Amino acid sequence: MTPILQLGLGPIGQGIVRRLLARSDSAIVGAVDPAPDKAGRSVAEVLGLAPSDPGAKAARALRVAPSLAEALAQAAQRPTVAVHATSSFLSQVAPQLVEAAEHGLNVVSTCEELAYPWRHHPDEARAIDEAARRAGVTILGTGVNPGFVMDFLPVCLAGAAASVSHVHVERVVDAGSRRGPLKRKVGAGLTPDAFQAQAATGTFGHIGLVESVAMIAAAFGWSLDQITSDLQPKIAQEPYESPDLTVPPGHVLGIDQVAVGLDEQGEERIRLHLQMYVGAPNPHDTIRLQGEPPLELTIPRGTPGDLATAAAVINAIPNVLAASPGLKTVIDLPPARWRQP
Amino acid sequence: MTPILQLGLGPIGQGIVRRLLARSDSAIVGAVDPAPDKAGRSVAEVLGLAPSDPGAKAARALRVAPSLAEALAQAAQRPTVAVHATSSFLSQVAPQLVEAAEHGLNVVSTCEELAYPWRHHPDEARAIDEAARRAGVTILGTGVNPGFVMDFLPVCLAGAAASVSHVHVERVVDAGSRRGPLKRKVGAGLTPDAFQAQAATGTFGHIGLVESVAMIAAAFGWSLDQITSDLQPKIAQEPYESPDLTVPPGHVLGIDQVAVGLDEQGEERIRLHLQMYVGAPNPHDTIRLQGEPPLELTIPRGTPGDLATAAAVINAIPNVLAASPGLKTVIDLPPARWRQP
Repeated sequence: MTPILQLGLGPIGQGIVRRLLARSDSAIVGAVDPAPDKAGRSVAEVLGLAPSDPGAKAARALRVAPSLAEALAQAAQRPTVAVHATSSFLSQVAPQLVEAAEHGLNVVSTCEELAYPWRHHPDEARAIDEAARRAGVTILGTGVNPGFVMDFLPVCLAGAAASVSHVHVERVVDAGSRRGPLKRKVGAGLTPDAFQAQAATGTFGHIGLVESVAMIAAAFGWSLDQITSDLQPKIAQEPYESPDLTVPPGHVLGIDQVAVGLDEQGEERIRLHLQMYVGAPNPHDTIRLQGEPPLELTIPRGTPGDLATAAAVINAIPNVLAASPGLKTVIDLPPARWRQP
Repeated sequence: MTPILQLGLGPIGQGIVRRLLARSDSAIVGAVDPAPDKAGRSVAEVLGLAPSDPGAKAARALRVAPSLAEALAQAAQRPTVAVHATSSFLSQVAPQLVEAAEHGLNVVSTCEELAYPWRHHPDEARAIDEAARRAGVTILGTGVNPGFVMDFLPVCLAGAAASVSHVHVERVVDAGSRRGPLKRKVGAGLTPDAFQAQAATGTFGHIGLVESVAMIAAAFGWSLDQITSDLQPKIAQEPYESPDLTVPPGHVLGIDQVAVGLDEQGEERIRLHLQMYVGAPNPHDTIRLQGEPPLELTIPRGTPGDLATAAAVINAIPNVLAASPGLKTVIDLPPARWRQP
């Protein structure tokens, strides 16, 4: 029975807690979210659990704390690992991760920029790594993407390759089948101008694509000169209609995002192409390795995002508990996998 | 530069050496094969290298030794790892692996029964593990199958699963496109009676399928009551003709092999289905996980056998050098991947 503390009760954090409550090998012993509509309420209330939902009784007895220190002070059992799902951006989460490490907690985080922070955020990465080593704990960023489909799986596939010269991953997600925040995240319904204004903030679209490029390059020992990223709107040609969203022609259905890694000769080595938009036909994940032999792998219908992210985080917990101290990435550890509780 | 000793120069061992000779990060410092047509000759001769082949010069200077002790005595540099490719059967290779460990060598082996020996050969597994721990070295069995397609990849895919209730893997290989030994190994051209006589020896067909079942079960924490294996001939309905083989209708094209894992309630949990026969249409590897979410993964045209086995072995070397001592399986280590030499 692993005692777990949940940091962050947004949609992803809630999904993880819901699944952890159903597992007989885990116990949620604390939960933190400073949002006024969450702190002070019970986990069951925040999640909207019915009395018959798995773990509802335990969740009713557990109050959401406004801070980590308070959650630890009121915890009946000391947690060994924190599941962290607060933000996509490393600058925001780095202090939270350092604080968790200083409290002796191992951490599995959904923070996209943490999946491979060594290239784009080397200072934060070093600070987190040092805090983890000092405290003797392990910190990992994972999820379905980054952490699985567009980086971990291509690296695994390359286990069967005698040489690789280029990596191409294509992921197409029908955002219409996903939660509300994802539709907003991809800009569905916006005008092209509003989309470009959002895109200009740099915090819009899918976060983590350049981290996936950096992870693959590190796995293969490729020294990349440049990693570029381009975010474009997918524009509706025909009207899109669904119960909760209508997109007229000319407006935005979602994102069409590409990250590319160029080597020191300026040659393209890695191309990750992500399309997430409402009404996307034929969702799939496809990996193509050029090399010897050429290798291709397809996941028809694609790996479902939110559910697989919750699964990836939960499945990584035993790995993180067993690993040596420090900041790890998914390519440093044995493959996370579902385990029978 | 990793100094490597090659144990076994059959077709797979030769393929591995050929590729290692081309890698700037590896040096073959010794080779062992007691076969009278190999021991005493140069590695270049045994491999039939042309002077222009990568590493041909080094291979001409390297004499195949009849035993590990002699290879070590004549090696200009002490090897840190042995690449082992002598036999599919653990009873035959266990003494070789223990001997290598006692000489302080880490080992990556293609022995199929070594891929996950803990269920079907627990005594040998324990003896090898103990010898490795005593010597402070790591021993791993890997390859494309077992070691990758039908066990490692399904386990990796389950990293995105919130639950798994059943694993189905289907691998179809066109043996017509493969080396002569594989055509013989699958019985192409035999009469059904001759096939059944061969099958009765228990050393015919694909070795390692039950080990793959056991590995998946161990990865998921499933306690299997029974693992069954069935080997049938694939019979030609129409004549099969190729430059080096003709199979008349009614004769054998190859194998159709199934291994199944049943849990303690007698319910099927794992089904691995392998077809390797000459003329197989639509070769592919397909993994289907029942569970939440259901997940499917396909490698169109399939993972090429011999080349991918050589690659898997070479790609595992850095992992084995970095691992803690003992007998490992591929699910214990970070994903092996191609690395730029």
